[in-house]
Amino acid sequence: MTPKEITPVTGIHHINLLVADLDHAMALWRQQLGISDFIEDSLEGRGVRTARVRLGHTWLVLVQPVSEGEPMRQLRERGEGLFLLSLGVSNLDDAVATVKKGGGDTTSTEPRQGLENWRVIDLDPSLLAGAPIQLTEEQ
Amino acid sequence: MTPKEITPVTGIHHINLLVADLDHAMALWRQQLGISDFIEDSLEGRGVRTARVRLGHTWLVLVQPVSEGEPMRQLRERGEGLFLLSLGVSNLDDAVATVKKGGGDTTSTEPRQGLENWRVIDLDPSLLAGAPIQLTEEQ
Repeated sequence: MTPKEITPVTGIHHINLLVADLDHAMALWRQQLGISDFIEDSLEGRGVRTARVRLGHTWLVLVQPVSEGEPMRQLRERGEGLFLLSLGVSNLDDAVATVKKGGGDTTSTEPRQGLENWRVIDLDPSLLAGAPIQLTEEQ
Repeated sequence: MTPKEITPVTGIHHINLLVADLDHAMALWRQQLGISDFIEDSLEGRGVRTARVRLGHTWLVLVQPVSEGEPMRQLRERGEGLFLLSLGVSNLDDAVATVKKGGGDTTSTEPRQGLENWRVIDLDPSLLAGAPIQLTEEQ
């Protein structure tokens, strides 16, 4: 089989950046890079406020942790900066099967609901050369 | 002025991931995600070996530090994982002027030569909410 047959990765779906203060971060992105059309949102299950903007074909998502959870833990331990890279897939269950067959794993047994209609699951970075990769299927 | 007038950000040009072992990392990406058409290269001035692959409209670049420099320093201090996010711009000098006018800065006075025909410059993350952002102009 060729790679195109075994993987449904369609591109880079979104990139998350951890920030301590969402409003301040949005102001800096606007002032320095002229990017201002952020859509604000929140994900209570993850304990975060978010602001996303589409850059070309990829969403950039600024993420401010507001209550305990993995994002808050990472902000405390590693500080602000790049948090995860989410690859778009056409079928999440098929993609997870491919990952596991290839020796990788996910960090949860089930996908979770992301922003908008995004269904997401995180891969185990320790099995993928440290890469914090997530898979997203748009439902 | 609208944001589109003051900034030439055209999208996400490339994303760099630091890895300790390029060959091992490529094998993992192929096995788990079916991504195998990497183009291997090196940048001696940065002390790195690289393997890049185009995912949709963005380049994903695996970067293995092989001699001293900023990538090696970051690998030692933070380990493997996301390293930088490079935004595409149509004119690097104009973009840098916008960044500085907006209160940001670059980490070097002059751009440097990246892979292929990429002319790049890094922004100061301490002035941009910790975001390790680079700008790339294709020449």
